[in-house]
Amino acid sequence: MHGNSSLAAITVRALAFLERITEVVMDYSTRIEEARRRMATKQVDLLAVSPGDDLWYLCGYSPTADERPCYLLVDAKSAAFVVPSLNATQAAAHVRVPTFVYTDAEGPAAALDGARQALSVRHPARLAVGDTMRADFVLTLAGAYPDARLTVGSEILADLRMRKSVEEIEALRRSARHADRAMRDAWAACRVGATEQEIADVAASSFKRAGSQEVLFASVASGPNGAFPHHHVTGRQLAAGDAVTLDLGGRLDGYASDITRMAYIGTPGARYLEVHRTVEAAVQAALAVIRPGAPLKEVDLAARGVIEQAGFGQYFTHRVGHGLGVSGHEPPSVTHLSTLSVEAGFVFSVEPGIYIPGELGVRLEEIVSVTEDGAHILSELARDVHRVKAA
Amino acid sequence: MHGNSSLAAITVRALAFLERITEVVMDYSTRIEEARRRMATKQVDLLAVSPGDDLWYLCGYSPTADERPCYLLVDAKSAAFVVPSLNATQAAAHVRVPTFVYTDAEGPAAALDGARQALSVRHPARLAVGDTMRADFVLTLAGAYPDARLTVGSEILADLRMRKSVEEIEALRRSARHADRAMRDAWAACRVGATEQEIADVAASSFKRAGSQEVLFASVASGPNGAFPHHHVTGRQLAAGDAVTLDLGGRLDGYASDITRMAYIGTPGARYLEVHRTVEAAVQAALAVIRPGAPLKEVDLAARGVIEQAGFGQYFTHRVGHGLGVSGHEPPSVTHLSTLSVEAGFVFSVEPGIYIPGELGVRLEEIVSVTEDGAHILSELARDVHRVKAA
Repeated sequence: MHGNSSLAAITVRALAFLERITEVVMDYSTRIEEARRRMATKQVDLLAVSPGDDLWYLCGYSPTADERPCYLLVDAKSAAFVVPSLNATQAAAHVRVPTFVYTDAEGPAAALDGARQALSVRHPARLAVGDTMRADFVLTLAGAYPDARLTVGSEILADLRMRKSVEEIEALRRSARHADRAMRDAWAACRVGATEQEIADVAASSFKRAGSQEVLFASVASGPNGAFPHHHVTGRQLAAGDAVTLDLGGRLDGYASDITRMAYIGTPGARYLEVHRTVEAAVQAALAVIRPGAPLKEVDLAARGVIEQAGFGQYFTHRVGHGLGVSGHEPPSVTHLSTLSVEAGFVFSVEPGIYIPGELGVRLEEIVSVTEDGAHILSELARDVHRVKAA
Repeated sequence: MHGNSSLAAITVRALAFLERITEVVMDYSTRIEEARRRMATKQVDLLAVSPGDDLWYLCGYSPTADERPCYLLVDAKSAAFVVPSLNATQAAAHVRVPTFVYTDAEGPAAALDGARQALSVRHPARLAVGDTMRADFVLTLAGAYPDARLTVGSEILADLRMRKSVEEIEALRRSARHADRAMRDAWAACRVGATEQEIADVAASSFKRAGSQEVLFASVASGPNGAFPHHHVTGRQLAAGDAVTLDLGGRLDGYASDITRMAYIGTPGARYLEVHRTVEAAVQAALAVIRPGAPLKEVDLAARGVIEQAGFGQYFTHRVGHGLGVSGHEPPSVTHLSTLSVEAGFVFSVEPGIYIPGELGVRLEEIVSVTEDGAHILSELARDVHRVKAA
């Protein structure tokens, strides 16, 4: 017992040390500079982001998001942070720009005006607002800058966020380890009579126990529910003959994970195996075309072609993938309409699926990181269906 | 054993029956009509809401929120729902208005245009957008209605959402039962050496096991962390002499809960007890003034006055409370600047706190429902500090 607890203590200390290293390696100050370079190119005079992933990306910090307006404002030379007093102390420790604090009693108007006066750009012609900023924050800001033309922040930040540094890819790989573990734990919880919610809870606990800060989603879709690509977890009990789609994601050190695998209760029949085999072939076809310089749309078309040729085209109703980083969904979007080319540093999902209404659904999802050599899968789990004894 | 499981089965059937009753009683169709009446009064020609609490309030349904634009559009006579194909089947079952579906490959432009053509109001002069709608959705909508003046949806929906029906208050009371249970479970997990995260996980599991659909937050702030009103849960271990602020909220049948109570590791000293007693007196002072017709600001001022008189005024940095319903925070805001009067049907928090930097924090929070008789507390838990043996 004593030996084990010493080992545990050493492990905790080692992990704490590694965590500090991570903090040192991630250099947030350069991110605001990179954003400014893109603002110059795109003729955006002012960039505003609110609590959420954009702010976290730029500062390594985001206060609790609520209805209290909160903005990081960045122009070519200066920056200001408008923050409610509840978050002021923590903000000061993380955001190294002049901060304008307001209390609930005061309201944000004076703090926002103070920030506006302090910035070098007083009258921005084009103002980019973070894509996920709340409408009421947008309208408050539009009121403070009545002459500015508004545009989406992704015009600046998508370009930046979709090109990952080596440190970011390492963070995504560590995050993927937790998702693999959660999937193994969820698989182990699949049995006749277990509810979708119980399995989702097992997956969520697994992320938390491993040290993930957040469970982004734990979707468990069994039997006919598998035909809904965006299923809400229910109290449905697993039964013999069910295919089960498990789609799990968490957040570790600020970086997301996302993985989809299948389970089957009992012995899968010919129909299930045909659908699974088709989705697997679609994943492989997509992986095969990923290399720097390839048109991104080819990744979508390669997977889609396999599914269409097998006669399931009408049952594949979504794009092949999405970028992954600080957000669970972020650029680049992997569709047949994409005009981008694949680049080293891109990290995105490959997740074809076949959804047959009233019958079953199968989706398999890998996260790939692109290097000069091609695609590298972050997960270490096989894509075979996990078979569960029915009795 | 047999007797118990029969009883359990009967209880489950009875609960399932009550749940169906609940579904029947909550009449969503009247909510859209109520919104239209307020649109007429406020001269808003079109109301747009996206996935989130506003949509859930109006329809009893909200699809997974992601970067795919999704809008419920309501004018005086007609309505339309623009929805990505991933959510189309589930949307059709819940939203009884003409639906305009788009695939990832098509993008939302044609579906949004179809909805625009189908509505009776083609050229709204004033367009209200749900307060929490994403900026990119707002800008897409503003592009479709270039001549419309934008305003916040709360101009219509706050007025409606803050006046609860009897059925809503019952739903909030059931939700509060789960929060009480989570608090008791979290209290039981408080011991020397337990981390804030472990206690938060116990609370989260408690909500889930009881059947809450969602854990909105489980904040555990120990020792000096208690001085941050918006604390992020950490791996800090509880130690003798720690005050612990536990702030928990979940969602049951669509309705939120929110409760804050204190724990103390060891025997609280005179300083802690003085602060706790002051916060308790502030809660009681606020409760005493709540009755229909009383100015809402008096609720804030009553609590604030007690804390100021005790010499802790500088350490009470936020408003006294916020509304609670489908959202964890919603109107009315309980501040000393409020111009509203208390009404029967209001449900809001009373949560004064004292935050002494580097030392400790104490907050106590009740959710009160207002009837003609005055304030009714939804929780059944005492506000005494929960004492934990230090050894």
